[in-house]
Amino acid sequence: MQVLHMNKGNGDTSYAKNSTVQSKIISIGKPIMKEAVLEMLCNNVIESMGIADLGCSSGPNSLSVISEIMDTVEAANRLLGRRLVSEFRVFLNDLYSNDFNNIFMSLPAFYDRLKEEKGLEFESCFILGAPGSFYGRLFPTNSLHFVHSSSSLHWLSQVPAGLESNALKRLNKGKLYISKSSPQGVVDAYLLQFRNDFSLFIKSRSRELVAGGRMVLSFMGRSSADPTTENSCYQWELLAQAIMSLAREGRIEEEKLDSFNAPYYAPCTEEIKDEIQKEGSFTIDRLEAFEIDWDGGAVTDIHTPHGKLSVGRRVAKTIRAVAESMLESHFGIEPDVMDDLFIRYGDIVGTHLSKSRTKYINLVMALTKKW
Amino acid sequence: MQVLHMNKGNGDTSYAKNSTVQSKIISIGKPIMKEAVLEMLCNNVIESMGIADLGCSSGPNSLSVISEIMDTVEAANRLLGRRLVSEFRVFLNDLYSNDFNNIFMSLPAFYDRLKEEKGLEFESCFILGAPGSFYGRLFPTNSLHFVHSSSSLHWLSQVPAGLESNALKRLNKGKLYISKSSPQGVVDAYLLQFRNDFSLFIKSRSRELVAGGRMVLSFMGRSSADPTTENSCYQWELLAQAIMSLAREGRIEEEKLDSFNAPYYAPCTEEIKDEIQKEGSFTIDRLEAFEIDWDGGAVTDIHTPHGKLSVGRRVAKTIRAVAESMLESHFGIEPDVMDDLFIRYGDIVGTHLSKSRTKYINLVMALTKKW
Repeated sequence: MQVLHMNKGNGDTSYAKNSTVQSKIISIGKPIMKEAVLEMLCNNVIESMGIADLGCSSGPNSLSVISEIMDTVEAANRLLGRRLVSEFRVFLNDLYSNDFNNIFMSLPAFYDRLKEEKGLEFESCFILGAPGSFYGRLFPTNSLHFVHSSSSLHWLSQVPAGLESNALKRLNKGKLYISKSSPQGVVDAYLLQFRNDFSLFIKSRSRELVAGGRMVLSFMGRSSADPTTENSCYQWELLAQAIMSLAREGRIEEEKLDSFNAPYYAPCTEEIKDEIQKEGSFTIDRLEAFEIDWDGGAVTDIHTPHGKLSVGRRVAKTIRAVAESMLESHFGIEPDVMDDLFIRYGDIVGTHLSKSRTKYINLVMALTKKW
Repeated sequence: MQVLHMNKGNGDTSYAKNSTVQSKIISIGKPIMKEAVLEMLCNNVIESMGIADLGCSSGPNSLSVISEIMDTVEAANRLLGRRLVSEFRVFLNDLYSNDFNNIFMSLPAFYDRLKEEKGLEFESCFILGAPGSFYGRLFPTNSLHFVHSSSSLHWLSQVPAGLESNALKRLNKGKLYISKSSPQGVVDAYLLQFRNDFSLFIKSRSRELVAGGRMVLSFMGRSSADPTTENSCYQWELLAQAIMSLAREGRIEEEKLDSFNAPYYAPCTEEIKDEIQKEGSFTIDRLEAFEIDWDGGAVTDIHTPHGKLSVGRRVAKTIRAVAESMLESHFGIEPDVMDDLFIRYGDIVGTHLSKSRTKYINLVMALTKKW
């Protein structure tokens, strides 16, 4: 929790410049988000609407979701011919180490646009930063109407118990995440951590949302019960290969690879449903799975040498922007080794994708807090 | 508004490392702050207490005020033998360009301390960042109980109209602020800007505070009606001298000095009372003036050469930490010229203080929102 953050700033390896996959995921979830907002507006009287984006990160995606939600409210206003919400309280959440400065600097332009495009006065929209972990309480009781979170809940609150870097036994040697060759103990540890984290998330939000409030969540998952299928873990498998190739040259310690396990989990729909039903205060309105290309689906012919290279590089940049802080902290590698790691990773990914079109599975769900 | 920010980070010239004067000012205001919090708790039933620190900046002072307020509530709890406030909503405000990342990174330790020292659960205290200008609305209507602001309201929302760097006439040549030699037009322009800004501040807070809510404000001012007395402007006079000496050597353009006027104003108590009374929704419970040493009152014998030097340097660092962003943006000077400027300024200040013990006047006021 203290280490994980997307790459800061606006540079070449920043998350802000390498988040098209996450942006694509937001687009895919958009119709579901709009539906949830509209349904909520039909069934609730809202004076001051509390909206939270959990895991907002820092970059063009941070405010785009907020903008979409406000657009939907505005469309509903026009449809019904009256002002349904007179005030917006918008909470942007991410971990303490997120680059909030970068988001906040973009707020004056955002407020100007609100005024210009939607005629909204500055005084009716209050945007606040809410730093902290969403695995626990973030907001006062009954203060929110709509919670959104995209591309965040696949991050666990910690490396699963028993798989930490200081664990006595190395259960998952040579791997970064669940792999075909991982023993059952590894799979169990990951599932247990996910169950604990996700149930705490649901419980916390249940306290914060008003009755009738909505939650739209989207994150990486899988479409089969088997946690070792390619579409739920192969990006980690290939990253482990790239690290291993540097380890063989003595540029990274192999022991470091053996002792690292990513605080990440791609659940299947049953695992999610289980936790929501156990907690009991939400109904599941939708729970859908979408396939996403590893590079966000840019049009490139992977079967040319140039295409293979550029797809691989794009994927490598995407993964680097989200994983570098963790890798840096655990492996303690120099910037030039980090650069080499992601060049190799890009090559490996390009070669893989030219043979097998592995995709991510992104799960999108809409929940309603029961009355 | 887009330019002004305290120096970021934790380095040698950072505000975080050079804010002892501001810390001293907070200490002086503490009894008044405690009194206001206690009085408010006696007269109001508060479930969820909304607290805002306006112009929180970034450094050790940012959270110390919040800590003091919570201590006072806790002391009142003990005194009355029951829990008066069950939840705190704490809003840390500063301009968009403030170093919020630095504050947010210190929150985990702050929450740990709350838990340890006050037995407060994480779940009863929500700390949020509220970026934006306090000259305008920042918070929903009737959402706050206590507003604090220290060492911030002497900053105007802009350079006074007519004195901007692109103004046709240079009314205040060779000066950075009101000076003995400034024409009346300069004095009038500053007062008008202060009146406009301060009245907008009061009006905005009046909407945000609940009836019976309190506001404790402290900022630089003056004890006489004359705005050219040394204790209200001489730090700027000496900074202008330092800039002029670099201009004479051709290292800074003199025209740049002529075209710069600081967005700062040190009002007298009558000017403040006027605006509060005109707005009409607050009663003034206290309005007091305190003298503060330019270096915050460290024990140093100014009458030794070493003492003179070290006092001067300390003052120069304090001023640099708050003014560098403005000077850099206007003068566009290189880091080495900036270093030289503040070395000279330190020498000039040391020499001045060894002859005349000019002090700042800090005004502290406690206001109550009328029922």
